[in-house]
Amino acid sequence: MRIGFIGLGVMGFPMAGHLAKAGHELSVFNRSPDKALRFAALHGARAAESPAEAARGAEMLVLCVGNDDDVRQVVHEALEHLAKGAVIVDHTTTSARLAREMADRAESLGIAFVDAPVSGGQAGAENGVLTVMAGGAEGAFARAEPVMGAYAKTIRRIGASGDGQLAKMVNQIAIAGLVQGLAEAAMFAKSAGIDTDAVLEAVSQGAAGSWQMNNRWKTMVEGKFEFGFAVDWMRKDLGIALDEARSNGAKLPVAALVDQFYAEVQSMGGRRWDTSSLAARLSRDS
Amino acid sequence: MRIGFIGLGVMGFPMAGHLAKAGHELSVFNRSPDKALRFAALHGARAAESPAEAARGAEMLVLCVGNDDDVRQVVHEALEHLAKGAVIVDHTTTSARLAREMADRAESLGIAFVDAPVSGGQAGAENGVLTVMAGGAEGAFARAEPVMGAYAKTIRRIGASGDGQLAKMVNQIAIAGLVQGLAEAAMFAKSAGIDTDAVLEAVSQGAAGSWQMNNRWKTMVEGKFEFGFAVDWMRKDLGIALDEARSNGAKLPVAALVDQFYAEVQSMGGRRWDTSSLAARLSRDS
Repeated sequence: MRIGFIGLGVMGFPMAGHLAKAGHELSVFNRSPDKALRFAALHGARAAESPAEAARGAEMLVLCVGNDDDVRQVVHEALEHLAKGAVIVDHTTTSARLAREMADRAESLGIAFVDAPVSGGQAGAENGVLTVMAGGAEGAFARAEPVMGAYAKTIRRIGASGDGQLAKMVNQIAIAGLVQGLAEAAMFAKSAGIDTDAVLEAVSQGAAGSWQMNNRWKTMVEGKFEFGFAVDWMRKDLGIALDEARSNGAKLPVAALVDQFYAEVQSMGGRRWDTSSLAARLSRDS
Repeated sequence: MRIGFIGLGVMGFPMAGHLAKAGHELSVFNRSPDKALRFAALHGARAAESPAEAARGAEMLVLCVGNDDDVRQVVHEALEHLAKGAVIVDHTTTSARLAREMADRAESLGIAFVDAPVSGGQAGAENGVLTVMAGGAEGAFARAEPVMGAYAKTIRRIGASGDGQLAKMVNQIAIAGLVQGLAEAAMFAKSAGIDTDAVLEAVSQGAAGSWQMNNRWKTMVEGKFEFGFAVDWMRKDLGIALDEARSNGAKLPVAALVDQFYAEVQSMGGRRWDTSSLAARLSRDS
């Protein structure tokens, strides 16, 4: 399939690579052109000089950019250049409102728009095992799903446009409380001076168990915070969720508090640390 | 083995039952005697009329009572009646200080004391698959371990006296943040009006995944809160953890906040609801 791919960051670069390996004909654009040139050289793809050029004649346009404004700008530039009946798949984490706005705008030109935020991080992108939470028309999703299979293991359509973004917010809200609870537990164990490996073995299989406990307990105890999703990105995502909650009436007392804790981690120099660095904040004076 | 068993509540009754089925010679005591009589009738055990009688000549004394004061009182009454070299195994969740105090006191009479709080709840006790987090001397633990195997699947010695209790605190601290985060996520999903089953499928295998998500998401969404560990007991356990943190210097901002949320659940009439009822608190005005 002829695919335009926009945004070759830590996620987009390996995701586009999986599409190239799957045999798709790619035209890639990135704001800083060196990445597009490197990608083109590595995978024999075309390095486009603008979103419009990446979109020209493409049956699918895949976005992996930074935020709502980036998506709006790229769609604005690309929309009229796409092939008739094309599908835009947006892997950016954005507001649900933006997803609905883009879907409406695309539809008026006969183009489908699927909001498709991912989880699984850089490792998931590199290993092609991401999770995709999608929103949009069933037909458009059905066309996009096999293509996304090149880099995703779990692909679920949650519902209409925006619902993929709402599911991603659910994911980040759950993680906020979970990681803070785990950080408090791990730092308590250290303060108490008990054998943290024995504790992990005892508690990880029961009601306190989680992916985060299995994967981040030991690194939290060791004070290592370079394993994935950065604090700056988590704050962006929590900001989107808190904003959505302001309009749908949901109460997020701990997610809001943890967002503030991440602000403290940022001011500790931890903007690029991973989300488990809440533990560093707890242990900083001790 | 000749075993005294004290405390036939929702946990102790089925645990003692597993010991009886394993062939041990049991003498059981419960504050309200009807339970001891019922147990004796059911399992052919002896119903003792006091902790001292339950302890008389026993090689092991197992406790499953309410709190620090209960343990202190029972040990005071039972200690001098135990067989020489006996082991006391205390499954009550208590302070670590109480465990060390009891271990010292027992040791002065040649008796071993193992603090051995459990997780896994009523279902875990009934099915004999509890997790035990133990503290105490290695020799005493080695003697107690095969006996506890009658009702526990995972049995770990964490370290010296009190360390089992500290591990249980770690477990409850982790659960506090985790369950609140999950409750916020589930109630957000409801407020957003998205398909909560599809969201669960999409997010439960990734970085937001947990035992709580697998087992409590659906019941939270349905507003059902009768699945296990009661809010009153969670508040007792969090109180112990917060007290310990006051002395070891650990910071527990979210565990402290969630403890206050549980106080609100209590005043909503939820003293016997399970810990996932944090979701009821979030949704009460909507």
